[in-house]
Amino acid sequence: MAPEQPGVEPGPPPRGFPVSEFEARLERAQRLMRGAGLAALLLTTEPEVRWFSGFLTQFWQSPTRPWFLVVPARGKPVAVIPGIGAACMGRTWIEDIRTWSSPDPEDDGVGLLAATLAEVAGAGPVGLPMGPETHLRMPLNDFARLRGALAGVAFTDATALIRALRSVKSEAEVAKIRFAAQAASAAFARVPEILAPGLSERACFSAFRIAALEAGLDDVAYLVGGARPGGYGDIISPPSGRVLTPGDVLILDVGGVHDGYYCDFDRNFAVGEVADDARRAHDVVWQATEAGLAAARPGATCADLFHAMQGVMAVDGAADANVGRLGHGLGMQLTEFPSIAPWGRTVLEPGMVLTLEPGMTFAPGAMMVHEENIVIREDGAELLTVRAPREMPVIG
Amino acid sequence: MAPEQPGVEPGPPPRGFPVSEFEARLERAQRLMRGAGLAALLLTTEPEVRWFSGFLTQFWQSPTRPWFLVVPARGKPVAVIPGIGAACMGRTWIEDIRTWSSPDPEDDGVGLLAATLAEVAGAGPVGLPMGPETHLRMPLNDFARLRGALAGVAFTDATALIRALRSVKSEAEVAKIRFAAQAASAAFARVPEILAPGLSERACFSAFRIAALEAGLDDVAYLVGGARPGGYGDIISPPSGRVLTPGDVLILDVGGVHDGYYCDFDRNFAVGEVADDARRAHDVVWQATEAGLAAARPGATCADLFHAMQGVMAVDGAADANVGRLGHGLGMQLTEFPSIAPWGRTVLEPGMVLTLEPGMTFAPGAMMVHEENIVIREDGAELLTVRAPREMPVIG
Repeated sequence: MAPEQPGVEPGPPPRGFPVSEFEARLERAQRLMRGAGLAALLLTTEPEVRWFSGFLTQFWQSPTRPWFLVVPARGKPVAVIPGIGAACMGRTWIEDIRTWSSPDPEDDGVGLLAATLAEVAGAGPVGLPMGPETHLRMPLNDFARLRGALAGVAFTDATALIRALRSVKSEAEVAKIRFAAQAASAAFARVPEILAPGLSERACFSAFRIAALEAGLDDVAYLVGGARPGGYGDIISPPSGRVLTPGDVLILDVGGVHDGYYCDFDRNFAVGEVADDARRAHDVVWQATEAGLAAARPGATCADLFHAMQGVMAVDGAADANVGRLGHGLGMQLTEFPSIAPWGRTVLEPGMVLTLEPGMTFAPGAMMVHEENIVIREDGAELLTVRAPREMPVIG
Repeated sequence: MAPEQPGVEPGPPPRGFPVSEFEARLERAQRLMRGAGLAALLLTTEPEVRWFSGFLTQFWQSPTRPWFLVVPARGKPVAVIPGIGAACMGRTWIEDIRTWSSPDPEDDGVGLLAATLAEVAGAGPVGLPMGPETHLRMPLNDFARLRGALAGVAFTDATALIRALRSVKSEAEVAKIRFAAQAASAAFARVPEILAPGLSERACFSAFRIAALEAGLDDVAYLVGGARPGGYGDIISPPSGRVLTPGDVLILDVGGVHDGYYCDFDRNFAVGEVADDARRAHDVVWQATEAGLAAARPGATCADLFHAMQGVMAVDGAADANVGRLGHGLGMQLTEFPSIAPWGRTVLEPGMVLTLEPGMTFAPGAMMVHEENIVIREDGAELLTVRAPREMPVIG
């Protein structure tokens, strides 16, 4: 594990959640649902179904089968799922589990779902996420059939409700994210020892993945980055066969998973030597992060946080922040609501988990992106990652 | 690497694809589009965008930004994507790359997409996947806005067209899947050496992931399974803290990735000793797979293949195949069209890559599932995995 921080327990937190956590989530949800006049929520995507139920499986990677969770305005959620998931769902706190044999080319759960919605919601409005960062994980044809079967039922946008629920994390959720961030930090600490000039980018990624698993992550679901002379120009590509060469700047951006929760942060490394402009750029984004850490307090908006970081870069570096935002929410997904952007009106609240991700282009084709993970506390930001050193570590 | 099979080259195949591959894919697609009277295809999901463009990035794991590819009836595809992806898309064969700064809460690409569709398709029909195993990866509200902006344009279901294109693989695609399957086979061969009674399921999963990375996989994107006394009852759950105990049957089901292509198969292991009924069940699913290998020929239907395997299990074992199918397509996704099911009318063609996955419940709460990966050739099935031994290997 990573060097311990004061007050941070070593070792992984307990797996899963107590039933009281799901009861509390449901109570928050149903209060908001009543306020919005919703008779039910219809959820089709992995994080939403898991947030309400605790249903955790990688099986969602198969696009074949749809999965549904119906949350009534009163009473417990009802799972409407393929039979193959019954045993796994049966170990959650959900009691009413309705299954069909999927895939079924005649009716892949639509009839069962329509009957369930009619039963729990009557003709009342059904909320589902329709806004930014959401999608409907069922075939469009089946959604049309569902609407046809429930003629007269209004389907309305529940994006704001889901955002309000999911963006504030419980302490048990924070503990999982912290563990993932600390394990990934421990793996990053080993980078100068396990990577070396002459290794290909692909070999570097493989060595880092193994180090991260050895540090205790369940999975390294996301790993992007690369190395280029003087600075990288792209932060979303898979690794190439190009070998690490003195003068390169290497970025590794990792989404590490513990018990279904992500950390998401990057680290920069210089290979052999550090060019002056890259050193300076790293210092600027490091200082921008410091400004973000100071500004991340309850009551501040995401725009405030953006400007605190952007201000440092505008003064000290080239200020082409073409990623469109300087951080985002984090939790069951690699990126979540809210965005830390100039248009971000969301007010920070205790329990929100965020990435601070100041990035800039400091020379033609050369970027420097930095990232830390934090949780908002009453008195400011608590770091979940082990803070990056101000100077880029050197490989080789 | 795994023990070599005759005619299988050791080492990984070349990364990516030559431009000629994308030209051939586009030609096939546009022929089908003309037959269907489509003016354009609108693609929003990772595999479809990558199939036409070669755009490979894990960045799709972030739900924040939509990505669009427009395939006109004539001429090359047009990418309509967030600016953060421009450099990565710029390295593909796509030339017309239109970007916006995403996320944009006012208009997250809808205006640019509508203008692009109007330009390349006029008022002609736009096809997009709406059928089984598909979803639309953009917010429902944005899709409604797009339809509003293109009033008069028909959006029609292109599921059959996309299935026809993607289900038949090129030799270059087969080589990537084969490499993944061989690397995972090599990792499975090490299981009796790296796992032992007393290790927790989670420790077993971690050791297997590391072995699979060491064998050359880019990623172990999917790993499920578990161990229980006498036989497991669930094949989609994450690992628990329970330790391997003599008498357990362990299943590991792995989706390993090479250059964006999956293998997907499982292996069963006995811990310490093999109970008679588990041994017999393993033999039955192994023989069912043999029947599947013999039946998997051009001209046979998926239903033929299902019945060939199911027939062995119906005679020799309990025949409760509650997974609803006995295998599926495989490629850029862990599971793809077609399903090997009793209702499967798809006729097998050379180049289709499939899993054969006979499974059954042989005692209350005890399942046995077996799986191999094959490609259909003119003269029958070619195995891509290293065939499982007829007897379960023993751990400890």
